[in-house]
Amino acid sequence: MRPSKRQPDEMRAVSFERNVSRHAEGSCLVKFGDTHVLCTASLEERVPAWLRNGGKGWVTAEYGMLPRSTHDRMRREASSGKQGGRTLEIQRLIGRSLRAVVDLPALGEVQITVDCDVLQADGGTRTAAISGGWVALHDCLRWMEARSMISVDKVLKDHVAAVSCGIHEGAPVLDLDYPEDSAAGTDANFVMTGKGGIVEIQGTAEHEPFSEAEFGQLLGLARKGISRIVSLQQLAVA
Amino acid sequence: MRPSKRQPDEMRAVSFERNVSRHAEGSCLVKFGDTHVLCTASLEERVPAWLRNGGKGWVTAEYGMLPRSTHDRMRREASSGKQGGRTLEIQRLIGRSLRAVVDLPALGEVQITVDCDVLQADGGTRTAAISGGWVALHDCLRWMEARSMISVDKVLKDHVAAVSCGIHEGAPVLDLDYPEDSAAGTDANFVMTGKGGIVEIQGTAEHEPFSEAEFGQLLGLARKGISRIVSLQQLAVA
Amino acid sequence: MRPSKRQPDEMRAVSFERNVSRHAEGSCLVKFGDTHVLCTASLEERVPAWLRNGGKGWVTAEYGMLPRSTHDRMRREASSGKQGGRTLEIQRLIGRSLRAVVDLPALGEVQITVDCDVLQADGGTRTAAISGGWVALHDCLRWMEARSMISVDKVLKDHVAAVSCGIHEGAPVLDLDYPEDSAAGTDANFVMTGKGGIVEIQGTAEHEPFSEAEFGQLLGLARKGISRIVSLQQLAVA
Amino acid sequence: MRPSKRQPDEMRAVSFERNVSRHAEGSCLVKFGDTHVLCTASLEERVPAWLRNGGKGWVTAEYGMLPRSTHDRMRREASSGKQGGRTLEIQRLIGRSLRAVVDLPALGEVQITVDCDVLQADGGTRTAAISGGWVALHDCLRWMEARSMISVDKVLKDHVAAVSCGIHEGAPVLDLDYPEDSAAGTDANFVMTGKGGIVEIQGTAEHEPFSEAEFGQLLGLARKGISRIVSLQQLAVA
Amino acid sequence: MRPSKRQPDEMRAVSFERNVSRHAEGSCLVKFGDTHVLCTASLEERVPAWLRNGGKGWVTAEYGMLPRSTHDRMRREASSGKQGGRTLEIQRLIGRSLRAVVDLPALGEVQITVDCDVLQADGGTRTAAISGGWVALHDCLRWMEARSMISVDKVLKDHVAAVSCGIHEGAPVLDLDYPEDSAAGTDANFVMTGKGGIVEIQGTAEHEPFSEAEFGQLLGLARKGISRIVSLQQLAVA
Amino acid sequence: MRPSKRQPDEMRAVSFERNVSRHAEGSCLVKFGDTHVLCTASLEERVPAWLRNGGKGWVTAEYGMLPRSTHDRMRREASSGKQGGRTLEIQRLIGRSLRAVVDLPALGEVQITVDCDVLQADGGTRTAAISGGWVALHDCLRWMEARSMISVDKVLKDHVAAVSCGIHEGAPVLDLDYPEDSAAGTDANFVMTGKGGIVEIQGTAEHEPFSEAEFGQLLGLARKGISRIVSLQQLAVA
Repeated sequence: MRPSKRQPDEMRAVSFERNVSRHAEGSCLVKFGDTHVLCTASLEERVPAWLRNGGKGWVTAEYGMLPRSTHDRMRREASSGKQGGRTLEIQRLIGRSLRAVVDLPALGEVQITVDCDVLQADGGTRTAAISGGWVALHDCLRWMEARSMISVDKVLKDHVAAVSCGIHEGAPVLDLDYPEDSAAGTDANFVMTGKGGIVEIQGTAEHEPFSEAEFGQLLGLARKGISRIVSLQQLAVA
Repeated sequence: MRPSKRQPDEMRAVSFERNVSRHAEGSCLVKFGDTHVLCTASLEERVPAWLRNGGKGWVTAEYGMLPRSTHDRMRREASSGKQGGRTLEIQRLIGRSLRAVVDLPALGEVQITVDCDVLQADGGTRTAAISGGWVALHDCLRWMEARSMISVDKVLKDHVAAVSCGIHEGAPVLDLDYPEDSAAGTDANFVMTGKGGIVEIQGTAEHEPFSEAEFGQLLGLARKGISRIVSLQQLAVA
Repeated sequence: MRPSKRQPDEMRAVSFERNVSRHAEGSCLVKFGDTHVLCTASLEERVPAWLRNGGKGWVTAEYGMLPRSTHDRMRREASSGKQGGRTLEIQRLIGRSLRAVVDLPALGEVQITVDCDVLQADGGTRTAAISGGWVALHDCLRWMEARSMISVDKVLKDHVAAVSCGIHEGAPVLDLDYPEDSAAGTDANFVMTGKGGIVEIQGTAEHEPFSEAEFGQLLGLARKGISRIVSLQQLAVA
Repeated sequence: MRPSKRQPDEMRAVSFERNVSRHAEGSCLVKFGDTHVLCTASLEERVPAWLRNGGKGWVTAEYGMLPRSTHDRMRREASSGKQGGRTLEIQRLIGRSLRAVVDLPALGEVQITVDCDVLQADGGTRTAAISGGWVALHDCLRWMEARSMISVDKVLKDHVAAVSCGIHEGAPVLDLDYPEDSAAGTDANFVMTGKGGIVEIQGTAEHEPFSEAEFGQLLGLARKGISRIVSLQQLAVA
Repeated sequence: MRPSKRQPDEMRAVSFERNVSRHAEGSCLVKFGDTHVLCTASLEERVPAWLRNGGKGWVTAEYGMLPRSTHDRMRREASSGKQGGRTLEIQRLIGRSLRAVVDLPALGEVQITVDCDVLQADGGTRTAAISGGWVALHDCLRWMEARSMISVDKVLKDHVAAVSCGIHEGAPVLDLDYPEDSAAGTDANFVMTGKGGIVEIQGTAEHEPFSEAEFGQLLGLARKGISRIVSLQQLAVA
Repeated sequence: MRPSKRQPDEMRAVSFERNVSRHAEGSCLVKFGDTHVLCTASLEERVPAWLRNGGKGWVTAEYGMLPRSTHDRMRREASSGKQGGRTLEIQRLIGRSLRAVVDLPALGEVQITVDCDVLQADGGTRTAAISGGWVALHDCLRWMEARSMISVDKVLKDHVAAVSCGIHEGAPVLDLDYPEDSAAGTDANFVMTGKGGIVEIQGTAEHEPFSEAEFGQLLGLARKGISRIVSLQQLAVA
């Protein structure tokens, strides 16, 4: 039995609230149960130096946690003077995931930065950030389309969403919350497109190595969960 | 006429939403119009090194802005590797303001950190942070009282709240929003207690020096605004 | 009775020694009693990036304390790898204060940096720095005038000077030294122009909140003290 | 055809040279073709603060590249003042991989740090580092066993090794070198134990999403490659 | 002819002004012509961690330049976030030089930090700092002796002083000022004790290598200059 | 008797292995006994900002030690966030030494960076780095000559090499290894050209001051050692 009483293949309640920021070109407050992430997409006219005059755009992401988004207060990264390895790893993953569904030449020479700030954490912050970040990015592109800068259909090739799975007390389960994540023997994050293509897989054995069969079960659960998240994204932006 | 059509002595809509964080001992989402600040109060068992074994506690504050809380995206301080002068100045002010109404020996040898993170900015973020930080602090102390750690009445001596005033197009106005703040000739922040004692005054001439008479007018407006904020704090925690 | 036996409205001995640096365009060693600050004004041909091609100049300030300017040795900020919040707060204040009396378009597209380094501290280092910084700035402008770069009368609109006041053992006193500053219930810094306009007010209740009446008394003392400092500035640059 | 003329399932020449460091308790120069990584294992008597008095040990890793290990000279991380996200990500991966085959309580309260420094890079530095790091770790444990500190058989549960696979010009290939890595559509790193258990999987679609079938092919190649690396480890430490 | 019209073996005017700091246990403003360095010696009860409980003390030094001590304003090291290589090199040299004449066990388990801050620079700041640092250190030890903490005769084994020499327009000259230093083909710093023992030699060919004979001439000049500086130290502390 | 049984004027085995890096324009693995330093010379088309459009090139050096190159593991400088004073001092020395034999205008407006990374340390790492750095630099210049960019004979004026000497148990000895270096009363590094000109001398009394006569003996030993190293360089590049 899962701590949350959910079925093994049951997601937490997922919701996307759009237009939560007055200033950002696109924004979304995404909730995976008690995990809440505020995503904003910011359009900037200039691309990174290494892309200049290359005729294509860029999508990047930054990730942060509010100091008391977690059970115990964490040290503020701005105060400690650097972003930790986990933060850098996550924001690189979010950026790669979003770029996988964007046609960068069709975007034109602009940069969109998707900031994902965790207001409250209960496991799965990176997967919520990718899923909500897509909605913020979508709305930023709609904003650009309304100003005749681009055509969304040409720039945004597909949905992208993510979910974590793991082996909890011997059983494969979908969408780990924090109590499960802390105890899980194996923990994997999956990023897929709306059409079901795989964008990223990260699986880690926390204690015992896992088998190919177990991994296959996790992948199956992930496919189911991501399919549901994509449906909710479709409803949200409809 | 103010850009917002408000009367010179009219505050923006002020609200305090409590218990917005699942983890923090006290929390409050404070809104001064379109300025939204998430305040959490975190209890820690240990005090800073210089206070150890001194038999008294400490209250401190940290302040941050989400990168896209502002009109244009700001660089993330965690990424730039240090907190700017403005950030440090503001968090020192919040900490001093809250400590002014706390009996530190009665608190006992613990530390409460009040994190004030600006989700959306439209002027007056520091005054909203102080006013909402007080609510978060209050709730943290109630949490401690419920566990027989302290008596709130002995630790929390009074309310504390803050507001900005300024001279906008020649007229003194209360509670500046961003368009007024950018254009104001003189800008002042006032921190006062529930009983009307002054805790902090910071007044700055952005262009032309101001006179004692003008400053007196700003102080009068501030008194009126803070009195209203304190009433709303009382309603919120009742 | 004040520890120094001064009258409540009595300044410490204030002196300005000009031309103390062989290299700087303007320089001044200012003393407020045992507080000694070396101020240099450095002319640079280029302005900060955000001002470029705007046809106006900039005046900025930096502040530092020698490690053993204080009673106990402080850690050197260059060694600890960052400037603390207090340092940043003070140098921002000095810069704002000096800019309040400079016509930046008349200065032309150059930058003047006023470095204020505390050789010995006994309270009031920021007010001494502003008062002495004005003399260094003045001399830098004279240096420019001698080279037909500007007209001092057009660029420098007025004097600017600063002093601290506080409530010490219940009585309002002028120009706090370190023993008073450490013990004062309320501590306020005032920056005013030669004509008596107020440029900056910063008042803080260290323990008990203060009243409007008390603040009025401090302002009155400050006006008297600043008037005397301005007279000494006039003598110094005559 | 692969740029190196290798068969799709053909590893580069892999070698492990032991005892290359005079000072380290264990050391190994590992080569995967032109990728050369110097691995040292250093025994320290003390564990990280959060493990103290917990009766178990710790294995951690650090990773670095010499500035001219790459085609173009990279900036030295010691000089730029921080380790980049890629470096942190890789050294976290190496540490997790090695810990997966160590019985930390049986190790006792000591720490072993495995430093992996890339002398020359041609793709696959992280997989070479894990594979060679295991040899250095093994030799460090032998060193401890010779001093009656531990029994290697109780501490070291299995081999661990890693390899990258990818889809290059539409075909799945094993052990990417740099030209393949730069051009690959999909790139995945696999870490497995000697018994074939999976420790870590990281797969990324650089351009087009990949399918479950493609991923299965990569996993099959990896299994073959890792099996060969483990055989070479066995020979090396025999 | 030297730019300053000095004879080849002629020092600049050297002076030591003691007791220039109200707070430091020992202090000295040393001048070598237009090079002015403020030296303070600060006594602290605790030694660095690696010396703790070793029964001996430590003498260390820190060095800094005020931003406008130089012809062109330099960036403040506290603001740039790190001390440059030249600063670190110089402060290590000052520390080693002073320790060469101190009996650390006789000092007892305390640390003396000698801060050398350059108020005005005209070449030879490190040699002035060593020579003046000795006076500050001496006075700090006298301060300790007056409190029966040590005996100066047992702790301070000798004088130490330093001077630079160089080959300027083909001729060996003593005590380089800035114009000579910038133009010199060879530049050497010498540190010697009162008895004539050599503590440190640093010679650098800026353009052409130098010969053993030339180096011998520089050493002879240095001996003469240091002998004079030591005499002046003796007069100063008599 | 020296710990290594060497004669007082006997160098350790010195060897230069060229072309050890696949990517660098020039490279050399230099060994002074158990001290092993990997030197690479990297050609870059751009010079530092302060040299731009000056028609001359630049040669610079960077130095690092692998964490376990030493007897006890050192903290990785990339991880601690800054290069220590010793590192900066050494890399400045290497750069100056190499520039002493390069005609920078003849090099043309390019920069060569010589990275010296210590794989294993047993004393004398900086002298090995200079001696091996020269070989790497030489080979980089040959690489340029082969592409008709320069003429080596015009750019490279001479050999440069370095060795340390010291007074060990009262006797002057050549080429200190780590046990001697730790115990030596006096330690000196000498850098000379092939023709015998002196480029740099650094002598330090670790405990007792040394005499001019002793220093002369060290210089004599150094001359002998450097002459031998230069011969080996000649053989290596022949």
